[in-house]
Amino acid sequence: MTLSAAGAAEDTRPSFGARLAAAFVAGDRLCVGIDPHAHLLADWNLADDAVGVREFGLRVVDAAHGLAAIVKPQVAFFERHGSAGYAALEDVIAAARAAGLIVIADAKRGDVGSTVEAYAQAWLSPGGPLESDAMTVSAYQGLGSLRAPHELALAHGKGLFVLAATSNPEAAAVQTAVVRTTPDSGVSTGGSAGASVAASIVSDVRDWNSSEDGLGSTGVVIGATIDMAEYGITPEALSGTPVLAPGFGHQGARVADVTRLFGAASASVIVSASRSILSAGPTGVAGAIGAQAREITEAFAGVDHGARA
Amino acid sequence: MTLSAAGAAEDTRPSFGARLAAAFVAGDRLCVGIDPHAHLLADWNLADDAVGVREFGLRVVDAAHGLAAIVKPQVAFFERHGSAGYAALEDVIAAARAAGLIVIADAKRGDVGSTVEAYAQAWLSPGGPLESDAMTVSAYQGLGSLRAPHELALAHGKGLFVLAATSNPEAAAVQTAVVRTTPDSGVSTGGSAGASVAASIVSDVRDWNSSEDGLGSTGVVIGATIDMAEYGITPEALSGTPVLAPGFGHQGARVADVTRLFGAASASVIVSASRSILSAGPTGVAGAIGAQAREITEAFAGVDHGARA
Repeated sequence: MTLSAAGAAEDTRPSFGARLAAAFVAGDRLCVGIDPHAHLLADWNLADDAVGVREFGLRVVDAAHGLAAIVKPQVAFFERHGSAGYAALEDVIAAARAAGLIVIADAKRGDVGSTVEAYAQAWLSPGGPLESDAMTVSAYQGLGSLRAPHELALAHGKGLFVLAATSNPEAAAVQTAVVRTTPDSGVSTGGSAGASVAASIVSDVRDWNSSEDGLGSTGVVIGATIDMAEYGITPEALSGTPVLAPGFGHQGARVADVTRLFGAASASVIVSASRSILSAGPTGVAGAIGAQAREITEAFAGVDHGARA
Repeated sequence: MTLSAAGAAEDTRPSFGARLAAAFVAGDRLCVGIDPHAHLLADWNLADDAVGVREFGLRVVDAAHGLAAIVKPQVAFFERHGSAGYAALEDVIAAARAAGLIVIADAKRGDVGSTVEAYAQAWLSPGGPLESDAMTVSAYQGLGSLRAPHELALAHGKGLFVLAATSNPEAAAVQTAVVRTTPDSGVSTGGSAGASVAASIVSDVRDWNSSEDGLGSTGVVIGATIDMAEYGITPEALSGTPVLAPGFGHQGARVADVTRLFGAASASVIVSASRSILSAGPTGVAGAIGAQAREITEAFAGVDHGARA
C-alpha cells in the first residue's frame, strides 16, 4: 500500500464539495448512519463480534443503495472489536463505495501536526484500506491543527466535517464559550474574538471553503436540535459550507422543520439519520430509508438544491 | 471476546490512580511515546507498513522495559495502516503490558453516549484485543459526554487523560475561550462559568477524582510549553489529578524546568517524551530513555513523590 502525503500531486477527480452538490441537485441529501450498537446487533439476530458488525454494515449498504446518497459508518462500533472490527469496516466501506455511495467515516479524529495528518492518510488516502470520501474531525486543539488533513483532503477530492455545535446537551460549556480577544501573551489565539467557539470554527471553515468554487469540501457538524442563534451562528456564515446535521428522530428534531432551522443554509444540509432507520430491523431498514428520503424530499420542496447556500 | 459494559461488576484490581502513584513513589514518571512516523521508520530501516510499525513498537517496548514506567502508543500511526496496523498495535500493547509497562493509548477519542462508551470498551475492556491501562480522550462535546468512559474506567481499574491545555499554538482560541454563565435558554452549560474551557475541564475532572482516595484515575493533558496562568489553571486545581505533560525536548520545554512549571502539582506529573527519544534510532533508543529517566530523577529531586499533589 502506498500512502500519499499531503502535497502530493493533485488528483483530477471532482472535489468532494462538487460531488455533494451534485447529490443535492439530484435531490439526495440523506445520510444513513451505520451504527452497529450491541443492542441493534441483538435485534438484528447478529453476533456482537466482527462478523456481526460486518454483516450489519453490508446489509445497511445494500438497503441504502439507490435510496440514499450517503452512508456514515460510526467507527467506534467497529473499533470496539479491534483489528478484526477494522477489517470488517474495510469491507463495509469498500462495498459502499463500490455501490456509488458517498462514505463519511464518522471518526471524530483530532490531533496535531504529523499525527493528525496520519489520521487523514488513514481515512482519505486513495488506495488505502479505509479509504472513505470524507471523515469527521474534532478541533479541540484548534481548527488550525487540522490544516494538514484539510490540505490532504483537497489534494485528493476528499472532505472533512468539523464538529461545531453538536446536539448533545453536555457540549454547551465548550461550544458556547467565548473566544478571547488577545491572551496575556499577546500571541493571537486564531479564531474570531468575541464569537463562540462553535461560531469561530464555522467562520474559519468558511474561510477555508472560500478558496473553492461552489460548495466547499470542508463541512461542519451542527445538531438539528440546537438553536444556532444561541451560538451566534447565522445561516449566512454557513454559505458555501456543507452542514452535516444529526439529531433527527430519536433526539427530537423533525425533518419537517429542517428548512426553518437552517434557513438560507438549508440547501447545503445533509440530513443524518441512524437510530430511527436502524431500529426498523433487517427487514424494515430499506423501507425506513425510503420513507425518510421521501420525508426529506417534502421538507426541502421549496429549497433550490442547486444554489450555493 | 466478551466486552464488559460500564456498570458491570467492579474489578478488585487497584485503581489506575493507585498504580500511577506507586510508579511515582518508585521514581518512575517517564512516559515513552511509540510514534512510528514514516520518517522514523525510514531512519530505523523499517518498512512503512504494518510489519514495520509492529517491529518499531516492539523495539521501543523492549528498550523501555526496566527504564520507564509508561509507554504511550500513538494510535494514528497504526490506524494509518488500517486493520493490519491495528493488529500490529494489538501485539505492541500486549507486549508492553506483559512487560509490566503501563500503557496509555494515545487515541484522543471523543463522542457522546453509547458511541463514546464503545470507544472506551475498545481500549479499556479487560480481555479486549486493544486492552490498555488508560486512553486519551477529547472533550469538544463536553466533559459530561465522557461520563460513560469515566464509569467504565473506574469499574475496571483503568484511566482516562482528558485534553485540557495542549502544547500546540493553534489550540489557544478553543482552550482559552471563556465559559458563559448561562446561555439564553437558561439551561446550564455545565462547566465553570467565567473560567477558560481548559480550566473548566480541569475543575470538573477534579470533581470526578474527588470520589477516589489518593491520586485519581482521570488525568488531564497539559503541555509543558504553555503558561498555565494564562488559562487560569492553578497547581491547586490539579490536586489529586494525574497530569500527562508532553512538549519536552523538540517542542521546547526543558525537563529541568518541570517543577517550576507545575509547582505544587509536580508530584502528579508524567513526563511524556517521544521524538527526543525515538530520534536516537534503534541502537540508541534505550540509552536515550535511560538518559531521559536520569534527567527526570534530577529534576524531581526535591518533590515528595508520595504526596497527593
